[in-house]
Parts: sequence; structure tokens; C-alpha cells
Amino acid sequence: MASTRDSVHNPGRAAFGARVRELRLARGLSQERLAELAGLHRTYVSSLERGQRNVGLDNILDLAAALGVPAANLFQDA
Amino acid sequence: MASTRDSVHNPGRAAFGARVRELRLARGLSQERLAELAGLHRTYVSSLERGQRNVGLDNILDLAAALGVPAANLFQDA
Repeated sequence: MASTRDSVHNPGRAAFGARVRELRLARGLSQERLAELAGLHRTYVSSLERGQRNVGLDNILDLAAALGVPAANLFQDA
Repeated sequence: MASTRDSVHNPGRAAFGARVRELRLARGLSQERLAELAGLHRTYVSSLERGQRNVGLDNILDLAAALGVPAANLFQDA
């Protein structure tokens, strides 16, 4: 999972995380509730929203389903 | 990386892989050339097109850039 792109700031990850956060807040969901709906750990949701995770395809699709949007929607600002 | 969802058939991964393949062929690119453009290994591109990989966000963004499309476009059929 670790790569040189983990360091400091990764714009692609940051945009993805910001978009997840935006959609989550628009639905009035806590990080804990989104984690529960997507089958993830709350701390994982917290770190991915901060752009710190190289989120895998399976989790991306589960997040989209939990947020009730097509997966493409998670990349709207990416 | 391994999960129970790796087994047999994962529809989300398959749709993603099929979409990458579709865009690659539309551009007349070989798997080898796409791999080169995206900084991936040819065998990785081959297996992801067959829906066998839990592709990470960093690689998804690199694939989109290599194909010249917004990342959202890779999820058009997902």
C-alpha cells in the first residue's frame, strides 16, 4: 500500500476524499454511520476523507452504494 | 489484497475491467502500451481487464490519465 505518493499531499486522493466527505455530509451521515453502511472501519473513512488512502476498487464501489450514487459520481471533482 | 470477493466473479471489478478494455481498444492501444503510459505492468493491465484486480485509487487515476478521460468515465458502466 505504501508508495512515494503517500507522502505529504496526493491531489487525486485528496479530491476523492473531499468528494466522499461532501456527499456524506449532504446526506447527514456521520463517518461512523457511513463506515457501517459501507462495511468499513470508521478510522478508515476518516483517513480516506483526508486523502491518506489508496482506496481499492471494491471499497470505492461499496462507498458509492452506501452513499446512493453511481461510482462515477465519486470522481466528479477528481 | 485478497478477499472473499476475489473468487469466481466480481461484477464491479468485471465492469471496471471491461470499461478500461473498451477505452483502450477505442484508442488502438495494446495492453503493453497502456501499461507503459500508466506506469503499470502489462500483466497487471491484463488481469485488471479480466476483472481480477482490486485496483487502487492511484492506479485508477493513472489509467484515466493514460486513456485521456476523466476518472469518472472509467465507471460509466459500473
